[in-house]
Amino acid sequence: MSTLTATVVGASGFTGGELLRLLAGHPKFEIAQATSRQYERKTIGRVHPNLRGVDLRFSAPDDLESVDVLFAATPHGVSMDHIDAFQEAADTIVDLSADFRLDSEGQYDEWYDGHTRPEFLSESVYALPELTREDLPGAELIAAGGCNATATILGLLPLFEDGILDGTEQTIVDVKVGSSEGGAGGGTASSHAERSGVVRPYAPAGHRHEAEIEQFLGPVSFTAHAVDMIRGASATCHIFPNDPVTKRDLWGAYREQYDEEPFVRTVAGGGVYRYPEPKAVAGTNYAEVGFELDPSNKRIIVFSAIDNMMKGSAGQAIHAANIALGFEETAGLAFQGLHPVGAP
Amino acid sequence: MSTLTATVVGASGFTGGELLRLLAGHPKFEIAQATSRQYERKTIGRVHPNLRGVDLRFSAPDDLESVDVLFAATPHGVSMDHIDAFQEAADTIVDLSADFRLDSEGQYDEWYDGHTRPEFLSESVYALPELTREDLPGAELIAAGGCNATATILGLLPLFEDGILDGTEQTIVDVKVGSSEGGAGGGTASSHAERSGVVRPYAPAGHRHEAEIEQFLGPVSFTAHAVDMIRGASATCHIFPNDPVTKRDLWGAYREQYDEEPFVRTVAGGGVYRYPEPKAVAGTNYAEVGFELDPSNKRIIVFSAIDNMMKGSAGQAIHAANIALGFEETAGLAFQGLHPVGAP
Amino acid sequence: MSTLTATVVGASGFTGGELLRLLAGHPKFEIAQATSRQYERKTIGRVHPNLRGVDLRFSAPDDLESVDVLFAATPHGVSMDHIDAFQEAADTIVDLSADFRLDSEGQYDEWYDGHTRPEFLSESVYALPELTREDLPGAELIAAGGCNATATILGLLPLFEDGILDGTEQTIVDVKVGSSEGGAGGGTASSHAERSGVVRPYAPAGHRHEAEIEQFLGPVSFTAHAVDMIRGASATCHIFPNDPVTKRDLWGAYREQYDEEPFVRTVAGGGVYRYPEPKAVAGTNYAEVGFELDPSNKRIIVFSAIDNMMKGSAGQAIHAANIALGFEETAGLAFQGLHPVGAP
Amino acid sequence: MSTLTATVVGASGFTGGELLRLLAGHPKFEIAQATSRQYERKTIGRVHPNLRGVDLRFSAPDDLESVDVLFAATPHGVSMDHIDAFQEAADTIVDLSADFRLDSEGQYDEWYDGHTRPEFLSESVYALPELTREDLPGAELIAAGGCNATATILGLLPLFEDGILDGTEQTIVDVKVGSSEGGAGGGTASSHAERSGVVRPYAPAGHRHEAEIEQFLGPVSFTAHAVDMIRGASATCHIFPNDPVTKRDLWGAYREQYDEEPFVRTVAGGGVYRYPEPKAVAGTNYAEVGFELDPSNKRIIVFSAIDNMMKGSAGQAIHAANIALGFEETAGLAFQGLHPVGAP
Repeated sequence: MSTLTATVVGASGFTGGELLRLLAGHPKFEIAQATSRQYERKTIGRVHPNLRGVDLRFSAPDDLESVDVLFAATPHGVSMDHIDAFQEAADTIVDLSADFRLDSEGQYDEWYDGHTRPEFLSESVYALPELTREDLPGAELIAAGGCNATATILGLLPLFEDGILDGTEQTIVDVKVGSSEGGAGGGTASSHAERSGVVRPYAPAGHRHEAEIEQFLGPVSFTAHAVDMIRGASATCHIFPNDPVTKRDLWGAYREQYDEEPFVRTVAGGGVYRYPEPKAVAGTNYAEVGFELDPSNKRIIVFSAIDNMMKGSAGQAIHAANIALGFEETAGLAFQGLHPVGAP
Repeated sequence: MSTLTATVVGASGFTGGELLRLLAGHPKFEIAQATSRQYERKTIGRVHPNLRGVDLRFSAPDDLESVDVLFAATPHGVSMDHIDAFQEAADTIVDLSADFRLDSEGQYDEWYDGHTRPEFLSESVYALPELTREDLPGAELIAAGGCNATATILGLLPLFEDGILDGTEQTIVDVKVGSSEGGAGGGTASSHAERSGVVRPYAPAGHRHEAEIEQFLGPVSFTAHAVDMIRGASATCHIFPNDPVTKRDLWGAYREQYDEEPFVRTVAGGGVYRYPEPKAVAGTNYAEVGFELDPSNKRIIVFSAIDNMMKGSAGQAIHAANIALGFEETAGLAFQGLHPVGAP
Repeated sequence: MSTLTATVVGASGFTGGELLRLLAGHPKFEIAQATSRQYERKTIGRVHPNLRGVDLRFSAPDDLESVDVLFAATPHGVSMDHIDAFQEAADTIVDLSADFRLDSEGQYDEWYDGHTRPEFLSESVYALPELTREDLPGAELIAAGGCNATATILGLLPLFEDGILDGTEQTIVDVKVGSSEGGAGGGTASSHAERSGVVRPYAPAGHRHEAEIEQFLGPVSFTAHAVDMIRGASATCHIFPNDPVTKRDLWGAYREQYDEEPFVRTVAGGGVYRYPEPKAVAGTNYAEVGFELDPSNKRIIVFSAIDNMMKGSAGQAIHAANIALGFEETAGLAFQGLHPVGAP
Repeated sequence: MSTLTATVVGASGFTGGELLRLLAGHPKFEIAQATSRQYERKTIGRVHPNLRGVDLRFSAPDDLESVDVLFAATPHGVSMDHIDAFQEAADTIVDLSADFRLDSEGQYDEWYDGHTRPEFLSESVYALPELTREDLPGAELIAAGGCNATATILGLLPLFEDGILDGTEQTIVDVKVGSSEGGAGGGTASSHAERSGVVRPYAPAGHRHEAEIEQFLGPVSFTAHAVDMIRGASATCHIFPNDPVTKRDLWGAYREQYDEEPFVRTVAGGGVYRYPEPKAVAGTNYAEVGFELDPSNKRIIVFSAIDNMMKGSAGQAIHAANIALGFEETAGLAFQGLHPVGAP
């Protein structure tokens, strides 16, 4: 198969830039267009200095070329308003926003404000390949899962699949995320002087990613904290199962779920990094999961770590596109992260 | 009252250095001796560069001068072995280790290894002044509370005092701490290249500070994570009360508990720092507490933030000594932190 | 002497907040007014979370109360336009901007854009007390020196005073600064995601602080780099003296210059911090200076380190006010920094 | 051509791990052996968590298999003592230490302590491909250039090649480096609590990399500073040319030198990253160079940025091996860095 053409809409944002990076190194895609109204005609390297060596300029989002795949890395609410133009331009659309992640208008309205094109909600395929792989081949509208939801679902999924949990248990998800989750731009709260070194709770309750988690697993008590890193989402799940569980049970569940998954590593390490660590997967599409038992409190503690911009966004989108289009799943994504590395 | 003389044993460590900083600026204390076997005869500024302007040298810990107060900032297990020498040298001893924090040998053995002088466990006064203020005046052996226990107890105390909680509830404590908790020295795991930017779970279950929390409040499910800061402990408590509670109830409880406390601030801010933030209290003896309700999960989320080396250690020790010796509580501790500030 | 009243104009900015912190802990000043148009009637703790415990609200800058001292922490260009109102409100004005730092309109026009009140340029006293102490008592308009200029001048001053340098030598000043130099506000370049971890050259040539350095010492080749800290300015001066110089000569020059200075420490340490280190003075008014010889290149390397917001701004302003008003020089400034501490 | 087998000696260190990462993703190499005495039989992922997905265990360095290429990532002084064993095991040796970088025993003795196998100094080929490309094909003993030397030489090379400089000028090199330069292991000085946030001068004069720079360009005045990043070396060169030079001259020199180089980017950007930035090349083999003129001081300021572990070490080694063995130069190295990214 020859290469397919791809457009990135919203290419000057953080996830847009990440898509460009991945597509530039992907053996099956060729970038046709990278749109940005603000930076029209500027080189992509002006905004994304890592791509200074790539010869490409932003174009206006108004004239979309006809391509095979369109990736939309626009803020929430934009894709639903441009879905007709997107569909006219491309056969396959991978949307990275929250616009098409939920199944029904009712769900959407509970967490977001009125959907302008609710008829697409049932058509779109939620892309967290470890969860929805079989729905992806041939999908025409793909909604890449959210970063915090991805970290949480990957951590909990084996317990649900194995029947250790059934959704009636108390499950607390305490997430720590990097500043790239806030996107490019930034105001006072995200300035270096204010944002450095924080442990800043945000959305202590009612975080919108709860909707995605509930859609697949059931209700959880979710709280996110901003900590001093740029990339990364680390979820710690505190779970109180109804029945006693052993470490052997847990190993069984995680091995069963993930031993064949190309992008999920169950961590049982010794050494410095005994548990999932966002640094270890930064810049990559890998997720790490791990767990521990707290016998005195009858608690399971599950840890999961991803790069929010990769496995939690652009990497997930490419992974889903690979499956949708019949490429090898790992095409363009099979590279490792760095060690040592700081707060990547 | 004229000044009292004070010795710091273990003065080359992080908390030892913090005690020196506080004593050097304290209106009622004069430093008599700062002991360090490793750095004997070196200036304290060689180890603590912030104190390069203070004219003082380390002396060997073998010849303790007779002083009014002795602060022991030694690793766990040292103070119990030297308690006789400490008592011979000083009328008042403030120990910053875990040696005398628990009430009984049974408790101690459950969490640590065999106590060599268990007869002191019932004599010593646990110092978290907001909890044990009335026991401190005249106390001769004071055990300053642990950092994670202090952050947790300060967050939860108003709920217990007010009767909103009685210890039968599910309470999860998810703590984020800085690298100074590991103390001076450092091996591979705490090297800059490895430790920077981590979200590293440690002691996911069975953390020894649970013992202190349980001693006063009841059992909690405790997990700590190392994040990229040097000073700071931030506790997020996820609580599922037996009965419904309103925000007004919570405000009542926290105001009642802390409105007169000189070192606890209940945070209800707008702006960038809406919740307790370790950066805002770094270098100070202040603690910040705050809370939020999650109605859909019937959950209370409590946040608390301290500087682990100050309110969680050296500051707490000085605060306790002030009370024990009849000084003004805030003597030598009434200074504010910095803004902006990074990962302090 | 009873306390004097003080107003801070521009109190919601970084240096304004630092002035509030220092004044709140100063034994001789009482804060009368803290102005901010944007945050009028909000508590100062909403903007400066370190001051959440201080009961004070911002007021509009339009109605200045009559006070003893007015500190202006406004952007460059504001003080010159409001100098009449400032003088009507206060007998002593300490301006932290660049408006009154240069001696003549000609100098000013060379580096900045047209001065609206050039007649004040010859009246004002430049405040770097180690350099201009004798001009400060009784001064009515004080221009606190700039941060990079302060770091540079303190490093080089002993060499000029001692006659080792006379201004004809090649002197290169390579400065590394923290993000607080950019002030509150932010924008893309100063967002956490972009600004973290950089070594970003800025103003490689033609930095305006050269004007202040030249005014006192002579021309230097100045280049600044933004690095990953919030507070701090570290200057490395590479100097090629006309005549050979020994380490003994250098020690003589620095001791002569600084041994009696309350806020300058000449560092000759062993241990981890052998040279001046901004971390060691963060949050304080201290400066550290040190040096090394490079015999094979006939070069002197001088290092100096300050907290740009303290010795390089607010601390310098208070220090100057103390001298101008006849207080003890160190009043309200005699506290030490922290150890360990991160990127403060 | 089928793949060649490769061994990494010293594979548990930072550069050893980086070689493993690169070889694992290289289309032409297959890892035969990764040696580490300390971690014998442990998985490489235990030490390098980014490689947890790679199925490989450390073996003892005593029994070297016969391979095509051996990469030695051992501390200075080790390779010279094991060169016979290395040559017995492999036809091509790429050494990443300083053992074979200098041309003569005299040079070596000036900067290091006695060489045990000086006869190899004239045989080995110094590998900074932009400088010594033509010597590499078929080379059997390759000495990969040092990180600080690489950053400096790449910055200055066009000026020497073009004749703008001839080595008689005053050239000051002020370098800022990350903590990975210190290697794995750590001690107090490199602990997270001490090393975070520093601007720490080290080797202010007499840095050993001066030897490499002088060997090719001529004498420079070199000073290095540790700053808060993990990877990265950023060199700022302050140069006072004998004759006037224009920006057009500089552009000519840099374009001529680097326009065909696959791994060097001359940066002339607008936007946030106007100059070379180590973040922009972290994790990659790219170098960035840029410059500015300071007319009032008749100074050229040259900036260069690399990842010290890649272009300054492991990437350089692979690049050199590619050339030596007749592979495409960019094989296994043609991937881009990240944006945004923190202190990588």
